[in-house]
Amino acid sequence: MSKGKVLLVLFKGGQHAIEQKKLLGCVENELGIRKYIESKGYELVTTIDKDGPNSVVEKEIEDAEIVITTPFYPAYISKERIAKAKNLKLCVTAGVGSDHVDLNAANEKKITVAEVTGSNVVSVAEHAMMTILNLVRNFPSAHELALKGNWDIAAAARDEYDLENKVVGTVGAGRIGFRILERLVAFNPKKLYYYDYQELPKEAVEKINAASRLLNGKDLVLERVEKLENMVSKCDVVTINCPLHENTIGLFDKKLISHMKDGSWLVNTARGAICNAKDVNDAVKSGKLLGYGGDVWYPQPPGPDHPWLDLTRPNGFSGNAMTQHISGASIDSEIRYSEGTKDILESYFSKKFDYRPQDLIVYDGDYATRSYGERK
Amino acid sequence: MSKGKVLLVLFKGGQHAIEQKKLLGCVENELGIRKYIESKGYELVTTIDKDGPNSVVEKEIEDAEIVITTPFYPAYISKERIAKAKNLKLCVTAGVGSDHVDLNAANEKKITVAEVTGSNVVSVAEHAMMTILNLVRNFPSAHELALKGNWDIAAAARDEYDLENKVVGTVGAGRIGFRILERLVAFNPKKLYYYDYQELPKEAVEKINAASRLLNGKDLVLERVEKLENMVSKCDVVTINCPLHENTIGLFDKKLISHMKDGSWLVNTARGAICNAKDVNDAVKSGKLLGYGGDVWYPQPPGPDHPWLDLTRPNGFSGNAMTQHISGASIDSEIRYSEGTKDILESYFSKKFDYRPQDLIVYDGDYATRSYGERK
Repeated sequence: MSKGKVLLVLFKGGQHAIEQKKLLGCVENELGIRKYIESKGYELVTTIDKDGPNSVVEKEIEDAEIVITTPFYPAYISKERIAKAKNLKLCVTAGVGSDHVDLNAANEKKITVAEVTGSNVVSVAEHAMMTILNLVRNFPSAHELALKGNWDIAAAARDEYDLENKVVGTVGAGRIGFRILERLVAFNPKKLYYYDYQELPKEAVEKINAASRLLNGKDLVLERVEKLENMVSKCDVVTINCPLHENTIGLFDKKLISHMKDGSWLVNTARGAICNAKDVNDAVKSGKLLGYGGDVWYPQPPGPDHPWLDLTRPNGFSGNAMTQHISGASIDSEIRYSEGTKDILESYFSKKFDYRPQDLIVYDGDYATRSYGERK
Repeated sequence: MSKGKVLLVLFKGGQHAIEQKKLLGCVENELGIRKYIESKGYELVTTIDKDGPNSVVEKEIEDAEIVITTPFYPAYISKERIAKAKNLKLCVTAGVGSDHVDLNAANEKKITVAEVTGSNVVSVAEHAMMTILNLVRNFPSAHELALKGNWDIAAAARDEYDLENKVVGTVGAGRIGFRILERLVAFNPKKLYYYDYQELPKEAVEKINAASRLLNGKDLVLERVEKLENMVSKCDVVTINCPLHENTIGLFDKKLISHMKDGSWLVNTARGAICNAKDVNDAVKSGKLLGYGGDVWYPQPPGPDHPWLDLTRPNGFSGNAMTQHISGASIDSEIRYSEGTKDILESYFSKKFDYRPQDLIVYDGDYATRSYGERK
């Protein structure tokens, strides 16, 4: 008899899992941790079947001791599911972002919620940089025209700009937001702004300014802005890099977007629900925004009527730089979060509970990180 | 009677020119220089009709004193055309890259060939960076899947990597190649290589290494490689940033590509003819290259059978990150090259001939720049 059950919910790899063995984050390759879990005397149940009352997750959660999920293919660990999970002690997010777990309910039952902090920060920062460049340089339209053999240069160039000398602001300057600033500075921006409940350490600000002096011969490029409305009104590009919580749901709605510059671009690689989907769609359709892009949706997967499947400008061209939720699912990232998940399990199985502090979201009945629980 | 004729060949803007007044590089907006040219007593003939024996260019070149063309929509100023251009004194490229002018023929007739050096370097460097990110992070496939509402994460993630910790090499470390290095270093590469007939100044190398120390805590990231085959064999990504000339035509053919790493990526924002189109296509189709992208083709526009309209991997997904030739046609770039064209004309009209030395390609019967004429 096993010591307990580990429930692992991952996306389906299918043929891709066979052809690409480094694709660790799918049911077939199981983060490469089956042998490890079994060596600890635990049973591993892996599934893709996560939704609805007859799903595997609904059934197996009743006696699972550990649940491992990902943000790309989230199994929602709701209040109701936690209520009936009589053995549940640990929820691991293989990746970063645990908003698919009801953290208050986890707190009440003293369930530990941990994620692999840092495992995807570079990947998401790169995805945001790619999306910024794609929007500013009008790649989606130009690529579509080129592949049709259409040589209408004007059609693509009319909405193509340089990132250099633009003003870019990040909502959130944490691990991901800061890495975006580090990359943006190499593109010689006019100004970089950040909005965050927490001030960046002086050394961090100085690092960005020093890079600007070195690369661009310009000092004092980075500044904090106290009011979000003020920041977005100054920016050509706004990039969203904050967690989803009660204060950020629907943050970018018609009202906040109305403060943005006409013809600016909005990038969201944080969580889909931080933006009001219809309001963003309206803003692109009206020409208020020249484009929107990122890799996060709400819900995931999006339904067939999701407003972001079609983000068309008034001139009929695409202002859409969306992908599925893949920024943190790169092969390099999958290797990092698989290893990090194993480390969290080792802390648990060994009964040392020596988790990396930065990995803990909810621990011993309380929020362990300020970014989820303590903002007011 | 006018003092002389200026022939200006630009792409058609159509509705886009009306809706976007900043789109200076099209026939309708004429680089914003009609009034200026007429104020100098010259006649301006603007056309899109550039090819064939009955074209406007063929006819007007016979008595034009100045021809202004662009690389995006090149009017080929061939030996034959130069032979019959009895008044031609000055060929201006509104932009960068004068390979559509027969430079030897221009030399023989002591025609000055000048371009607006630097006007597009940032734009092209950004386009190359965007293309690198799009290929490494698998944007074209992921974007296509997302817009179809396909949530097959594995299909997109299987070929998605991080740029961080990769080895990137540039063929050519001139104005554009160096700017790409300046941007790449912020992405924390494992190593950066360059191949160039000319060594980078020590200060330039130190600038990249200093940025690497500052941003990534890593020194000595940039190195020169003497043999091109050696460089490409070390690289995850190769980016082409050299001019097209007799030694670079068809440079990336089957043989050179065979030296590249399996599953690497190739980016070309220099000139289409530097790559053998079919060999590149074969390399993507066979899986040797994971993807190819850029904005340059040969010929331009590409015919309906051009091998780069379809660059599909063995697994059926797109490894294609092409656009039309728009990198240097961004609105910001169009403003710069329109102003630069006016400066070149002013040097000519004023009879001071005080051109910026870096703008001169061919002057007084000789090559004025080493990158076109003097390599051996």
